[in-house]
Amino acid sequence: MSQFISLKEINFLLYDVLDVEQMLRFPRFADHDKTTFDETLNTAYRVATDHFANHYKLADEQEPQFDGEQIRTPAAVKTAWQHYCQAGFIGAGKDYELGGMQLPYSINAAIGATFAAANVASAAYPFLTGAAANVIDSFGSAEQKQRFLAPMLSGEFAGTMALTEPDVGSSLGDLSTKATPMADGSYRISGNKIYISGGDQDITSNIVHLVLARIEGAPSGTKGISLFIVPKVLVNDDGSLGERNDVQLAGLLHKMGYRGTTSTALSFGEQGRCVGYLLGEANHGLGYMFKMMNEARIFVGIGAASLGYRGYLESLEYARHRPQGRKPSEKDPHAKPVNIIEHSDVKRMLLAQKAYSEGSLALCLFAATLVDRAEADNDGDAKELLELLTPVVKSFPSYYGPRSNDLAIQILGGAGYTREYNVEQLYRDNRLNPIHEGTHGIQSLDLLGRKLWQNRGRGLTLLLAQFQQTVAAAETQPQLRPLLTPFSQHLQTVTRTIETLGQALHGGKVELALANSALFLDMMGKTIISWIWLKSSERAIAGYGHSQDEEDQAFVAGKLQAAKYFIQWELPQIEHQAQLLIEFDDSCAAMQPEWF
Amino acid sequence: MSQFISLKEINFLLYDVLDVEQMLRFPRFADHDKTTFDETLNTAYRVATDHFANHYKLADEQEPQFDGEQIRTPAAVKTAWQHYCQAGFIGAGKDYELGGMQLPYSINAAIGATFAAANVASAAYPFLTGAAANVIDSFGSAEQKQRFLAPMLSGEFAGTMALTEPDVGSSLGDLSTKATPMADGSYRISGNKIYISGGDQDITSNIVHLVLARIEGAPSGTKGISLFIVPKVLVNDDGSLGERNDVQLAGLLHKMGYRGTTSTALSFGEQGRCVGYLLGEANHGLGYMFKMMNEARIFVGIGAASLGYRGYLESLEYARHRPQGRKPSEKDPHAKPVNIIEHSDVKRMLLAQKAYSEGSLALCLFAATLVDRAEADNDGDAKELLELLTPVVKSFPSYYGPRSNDLAIQILGGAGYTREYNVEQLYRDNRLNPIHEGTHGIQSLDLLGRKLWQNRGRGLTLLLAQFQQTVAAAETQPQLRPLLTPFSQHLQTVTRTIETLGQALHGGKVELALANSALFLDMMGKTIISWIWLKSSERAIAGYGHSQDEEDQAFVAGKLQAAKYFIQWELPQIEHQAQLLIEFDDSCAAMQPEWF
Repeated sequence: MSQFISLKEINFLLYDVLDVEQMLRFPRFADHDKTTFDETLNTAYRVATDHFANHYKLADEQEPQFDGEQIRTPAAVKTAWQHYCQAGFIGAGKDYELGGMQLPYSINAAIGATFAAANVASAAYPFLTGAAANVIDSFGSAEQKQRFLAPMLSGEFAGTMALTEPDVGSSLGDLSTKATPMADGSYRISGNKIYISGGDQDITSNIVHLVLARIEGAPSGTKGISLFIVPKVLVNDDGSLGERNDVQLAGLLHKMGYRGTTSTALSFGEQGRCVGYLLGEANHGLGYMFKMMNEARIFVGIGAASLGYRGYLESLEYARHRPQGRKPSEKDPHAKPVNIIEHSDVKRMLLAQKAYSEGSLALCLFAATLVDRAEADNDGDAKELLELLTPVVKSFPSYYGPRSNDLAIQILGGAGYTREYNVEQLYRDNRLNPIHEGTHGIQSLDLLGRKLWQNRGRGLTLLLAQFQQTVAAAETQPQLRPLLTPFSQHLQTVTRTIETLGQALHGGKVELALANSALFLDMMGKTIISWIWLKSSERAIAGYGHSQDEEDQAFVAGKLQAAKYFIQWELPQIEHQAQLLIEFDDSCAAMQPEWF
Repeated sequence: MSQFISLKEINFLLYDVLDVEQMLRFPRFADHDKTTFDETLNTAYRVATDHFANHYKLADEQEPQFDGEQIRTPAAVKTAWQHYCQAGFIGAGKDYELGGMQLPYSINAAIGATFAAANVASAAYPFLTGAAANVIDSFGSAEQKQRFLAPMLSGEFAGTMALTEPDVGSSLGDLSTKATPMADGSYRISGNKIYISGGDQDITSNIVHLVLARIEGAPSGTKGISLFIVPKVLVNDDGSLGERNDVQLAGLLHKMGYRGTTSTALSFGEQGRCVGYLLGEANHGLGYMFKMMNEARIFVGIGAASLGYRGYLESLEYARHRPQGRKPSEKDPHAKPVNIIEHSDVKRMLLAQKAYSEGSLALCLFAATLVDRAEADNDGDAKELLELLTPVVKSFPSYYGPRSNDLAIQILGGAGYTREYNVEQLYRDNRLNPIHEGTHGIQSLDLLGRKLWQNRGRGLTLLLAQFQQTVAAAETQPQLRPLLTPFSQHLQTVTRTIETLGQALHGGKVELALANSALFLDMMGKTIISWIWLKSSERAIAGYGHSQDEEDQAFVAGKLQAAKYFIQWELPQIEHQAQLLIEFDDSCAAMQPEWF
């Protein structure tokens, strides 16, 4: 039985690569030490093993059903929720006074990786609740926190994000859900939302929807959007549950994967009595939502990386124990078959998975440390770098995670295509990630059209400084030197491409410069993951390179080989991407709808 | 409602690009003309629309069930089988005297594309039966043809290929199913087979299994394998059904996609009374099976291309009618949203699908014309070229078909991830194709380790001659000239790579030369598809370039743009692959199992 995640790898990334112990000097984390981190991670692993991994398949096979009155989810999903909440993970990062543990976001992210790898669909309910809770914590009034946040953190209520509308999709500025102010200061909400994950369920007694809507008379476009708290059941002043609010389940969407999490169409105010409470100021809703969205994007990255990583571990286990075929040079048909891990092409498929998924996890956890620095240490540079990286943190794992899972299926062959194994489910589950919380295309426009130039390119300057720091450290390691030359050469290509695109963008050639943004996103992803692999392998050598322990030596050799694979097999692909970008190739942009 | 395939495209490929009318001069097809071809294709389209496309989703949702006694398949699957057989498609290519239509294989392949696009799982039953029938037709005795082939062609019996064993997978030389000769000339078969598609069902009264087994005392390895006819129900001398043979369903495999086709584990001879009949000569079984396997591989390519193509058509239809967002340069939030087909990144995703799937279909149909030339015209060169191309025909569509479907999902966004639309099912169904009938890895070894050098590289010489012929024709078209220079340059890279790898292989460095064969397979695929795009667009210009009809002009412009996309965006990726191959990069091969 293979693991769903490796605590050893998580520990290596947190402590050796990202040095999260440094965070202990921030006053917010003063009560913590490595022991409390370790204990929390171990608890997460235990709860994830006992109460999430135990029903990964079942949650897929026994999709939530709507019987016309109520949704029915399997008992195991409810039990998982209870154990997650009882362990205090929803509010793990929150203030002590709210009952939280004041854990760093980076530790929370590692906890997230653990639960996502174990059972992403069942973990989605508490993840979404935690994300919604963050918004109320950041922007809600004291009264709203009392009434809604406290029961969310305790696990009594769940939370959702209700952004998307049927006719609008990603184009939030066009949303049409309405909010009408009432005399008592509340609003009446009316409109339809779709693809609301966890939008209805029978796990909690109440669900707190955060709904984007436009107050009557507000400006059109993104500047007239406000954010509302809309509970499924109204909450009395004493905290007890009151009447059912006018929020109706219009239907369940049936997904390819992620089946354990309900995806819903919701109607707000069909009977004209849907009560909502304005969160923060009017017309600032999109900004508030983006506070949440940015962290949600990191969590999408973490989920995608974790599913990729689990597929890697499962296919690795299979390849180690499945005898089949012989080496091409073996001519004796009587020779014993070798385990398939001996075949060069299987090694390729495992190594690519290792490079994608460990690299993705490292990047996501790095981003999480930036959240900590930005929030707990008020570090403006960390915030700037985080904003630049977010589109890549969201999209690289989302694209290469499913590709990892594709390779895992291929290694298992016919077995991998059956539901008797997990890898096909990982592949289906992971396919959501390039879609939700901003599609790939949207991430690419965010990166190339906005983030790169924000604050006069400060984020990029900081990123390049990170690269330089890693290169300087790696130069002292003879084993890494052969990788530094290609890395630096390809980096020159990247900076040249950015210059060219920047000139076009700032010269008003917006369409032209953005036309191939998807290529640019991939190029940046490959460059950043190459850097994180240099950093990881440099840290592996520094930490364990002199160890006499065989396991340590193998660990370091594996890290080096994955870095080599990524820098020699994947990174050079950016040269051709750069050429298309620099030449403003219009093969796609010039295609006309009627030519298809 | 979008089409599942375009008859216009099929006609363009068959007549304009591949000039199948030329086949009419072969004596075997003397009774045919374009009208009979067209009528057959139209009938196929009608039957596919009425009886296959009608239950594409249903066959997925209502997977065949085993109730402990019998398999239950939905009624629609049985009706589809009946209509397919009544229209005479199982034996469409067979001799008149067998009740066939003596249609060219290329027309059959186009029929296959039509049914695969409509409903690949329901089409698999007759496809497999047709493939098994071919083997009996080619190698069976007159008596075997009478008893088994005739009822297969009429649709009374179905057929399967029973190769794989649980512990053996792709390594057929290791198979252990036994055949014991009996006094009456028949054999007793005993052993277990797995992943047998259509291995049991309730559609036909009998199933004819073609089973690979080893006669007692036969040599080990691939040279001791024989092929047997093993019916589910014994057939009496008068053709009536006799006793149930000792073939038991050990279980159903539950797949990610392709759910409408049963995948079975079968036990032969559990009670020691499983009767089998030797097909052809003893110990020649693998060769016979490969006759069938090679055509099965073309059909895998066709299926993968067709599923890719259907996803393209469905996402195209969606993109044409889904308004969302605005152009990046549009600053007015009141401006009407554009249909998403206007977005450059959506154009990219559509154009890539068009390039992959129309290119794949063209290649598969080209291969089918080679089957006709080889078989109906006894053309040795056609056979040689076909053998070289088969690994690419099988693998390019199998790899890029699912990638096409991935892009189709992405275009539909959240909708694409739900089972309310077809694209997610196409993606799941198509994922089987890189696995069955020889995995990707096996195709790459077949190409680089064997086919390229067969008969002193005759296949490659013929392929290069095809390229030259196309380049010469394209040179007369000014619009194509800009694509010829990059094509020729990259082709030089390919020939240089082949030389280097050949020297290593023939110098005994087998492991080294084959280590990165997967890269080589992809490189050859990209090169061959670039050629087929040059050929297709040259033929489009020649046929319709001077038309004043707007639809014709758009058709030609679309072909040109897809050729441009493929040659400028995809083909250049082979340069980096070539570099890794030529340098014998050992990033993967040098990885050690314990380092993972």
